[in-house]
Amino acid sequence: MTVPQAQGAGLDLTADVVELTRQLVDFPSESLHEAPLADAVETVLREQSHLEVTRVGNTVVARTTQGRPERVVIAGHLDTVPENGNLPGRLEDGVLHGLGSVDMKGGVAVGLRLAATLATSNRDVTYVFYDAEEIAAVHNGLGKLGQSHPQLLEADFAILMEPSNASVEAGCQGTMRVEVTTTGERAHTARAWMGVNAIHEAGELLARLNAYEPRKPLIDGLEYHEGLNAVFISGGVAGNVLPDACTLTVNYRFAPDRSEAEAEAFLRDFFDGYAVKVTDSSPGALPGLTRPAAKAFLEAVGGTPAPKFGWTDVSRFSALGVPAVNFGPGDPLLAHKAEEHVHVEEIIRCEQQLVAWLSEEEQ
Amino acid sequence: MTVPQAQGAGLDLTADVVELTRQLVDFPSESLHEAPLADAVETVLREQSHLEVTRVGNTVVARTTQGRPERVVIAGHLDTVPENGNLPGRLEDGVLHGLGSVDMKGGVAVGLRLAATLATSNRDVTYVFYDAEEIAAVHNGLGKLGQSHPQLLEADFAILMEPSNASVEAGCQGTMRVEVTTTGERAHTARAWMGVNAIHEAGELLARLNAYEPRKPLIDGLEYHEGLNAVFISGGVAGNVLPDACTLTVNYRFAPDRSEAEAEAFLRDFFDGYAVKVTDSSPGALPGLTRPAAKAFLEAVGGTPAPKFGWTDVSRFSALGVPAVNFGPGDPLLAHKAEEHVHVEEIIRCEQQLVAWLSEEEQ
Repeated sequence: MTVPQAQGAGLDLTADVVELTRQLVDFPSESLHEAPLADAVETVLREQSHLEVTRVGNTVVARTTQGRPERVVIAGHLDTVPENGNLPGRLEDGVLHGLGSVDMKGGVAVGLRLAATLATSNRDVTYVFYDAEEIAAVHNGLGKLGQSHPQLLEADFAILMEPSNASVEAGCQGTMRVEVTTTGERAHTARAWMGVNAIHEAGELLARLNAYEPRKPLIDGLEYHEGLNAVFISGGVAGNVLPDACTLTVNYRFAPDRSEAEAEAFLRDFFDGYAVKVTDSSPGALPGLTRPAAKAFLEAVGGTPAPKFGWTDVSRFSALGVPAVNFGPGDPLLAHKAEEHVHVEEIIRCEQQLVAWLSEEEQ
Repeated sequence: MTVPQAQGAGLDLTADVVELTRQLVDFPSESLHEAPLADAVETVLREQSHLEVTRVGNTVVARTTQGRPERVVIAGHLDTVPENGNLPGRLEDGVLHGLGSVDMKGGVAVGLRLAATLATSNRDVTYVFYDAEEIAAVHNGLGKLGQSHPQLLEADFAILMEPSNASVEAGCQGTMRVEVTTTGERAHTARAWMGVNAIHEAGELLARLNAYEPRKPLIDGLEYHEGLNAVFISGGVAGNVLPDACTLTVNYRFAPDRSEAEAEAFLRDFFDGYAVKVTDSSPGALPGLTRPAAKAFLEAVGGTPAPKFGWTDVSRFSALGVPAVNFGPGDPLLAHKAEEHVHVEEIIRCEQQLVAWLSEEEQ
């Protein structure tokens, strides 16, 4: 097949991981426009004779088939948020600046390097490079793959190379959004005693939120930190009318020891007396650090694992019964920012640790 | 001059006041479309030799010039809100149904009948029929007249024939709108402890509103009733972000013993600690019932005067130094409603009481 040459050359997997990250940063791949990059990735992976490559939409899966007793997934998304005056990339004093340098082309570069260089490894590896992670869940390439080809994701352990400061962040918290509505009775503001003000009624909801004490459960030795926050509020009819409705949208971030059903029950109890409607929900993922594959990985990379507070695609692996962790270069607080940048030392360290883990003698 | 024949015949001031009200109801005059009705009113008033008629825009002023020591204004607006399936008018069992039957063509009919029948009276009278009361204040015909021809509104007393159940409602409350803003600091909801939620901060504002005790000052024997109500609230950035701003719009209805400056000072104190911006303000009007002209009127029409809670154009007279009351047929709670209707007995009673007051021997 021919190689689409989008924005300059294709990818060079013989380059070092920092140079490869820069190539990836300079290869635009905003969500829903990943096809050229997926083509380039597919092309270079098909050149590796030790890999079995499958293309599904703009998701590329490459598997070693060495017959090892254990299989691990190493996954990263190809897409970025829209450019924000931060292209092309720029390498300066050991720091790579540019769109996607953190989220998450450093991680993708590490995955591609491993796929190209580890012809043999102590575990079979399934590399997954997928599309549309940064937009609505319905487009998510990993989610689609889990639906259409769940066998391609079967594994004993998964590493999602989301930025986590090159250390292990385990599990992820769930997220649920609800609309809580207060009702009142319209009246002219000049005769307010004839009505009931629904915005005033919302004072009770805000009082409950202000009195909220977050749970901080300890799971596998990691302390999670829940959160319950109003993210939108709206109400009002006219400048001289008592409003008869006020809607508060609340986002609940819940630790992974709670199911979605338990999260919903908590919210309905918390807002007892008011109409509560769930508008969005995604389950958390337990860290699963006590599973053998996870323990071996933690021993190999060292350091102290931390809980992941934000929601990530590790939850999709968890739903498939595969324990998963976040492990990738870059500070997640810099993701989606114009000043996005990564210390290249973290990219190099991630590659080295994964090579060591996949090359060491099996015990 | 020729008589514009909009929607059937012109007006017949020899008809009784109920029939004249029906003619006026069936003569469409939505705000900014009052010209044909103003033309018809001007025509029939110019036929009265005892009146000096001035036309200013779509406002018609007709004055007796008998040289009496006292002059009173009788005023009503010609416009209505848009039709709402309630035209033409319908007289049934002593009740006239239809657009404007309450607000305020019954009052206009009374004024026109007085203008036509009282060639002599114990006080000089200035009749004012004006446009654009139901829309933004900048269009208000009475307001414009006060600017361009203040001498035409000079008087000892004014009667605004706004619906008041054919009894006297004195003065009016002022109205002020403010925007109160809380501020916070954005953060991802998964790490809420890194930010400050501006919607949660608004809980304090709503708590203050819920603890508010309205003033009910007694003025000239009338008990007013203030009100402080949120009419709009808005805030929010995204479904996973702590909002950094929340804006509450509050409408304060204040008794006429408070000036606008005092009302503003009260609000700034009430919302101390938050940004407060005044977006709209109109002063109230003191009832002025102790003034001689007002006392004489009250004695003539009898009954117990009540305070006016809503804002009306009596405030414009008050600003010109003319004490004024609301006195007109119809229940103000039916104004602007599809089912608008008036008991014709109230229209007849208003006419009779005003005729008696303007005809009795001076004391």
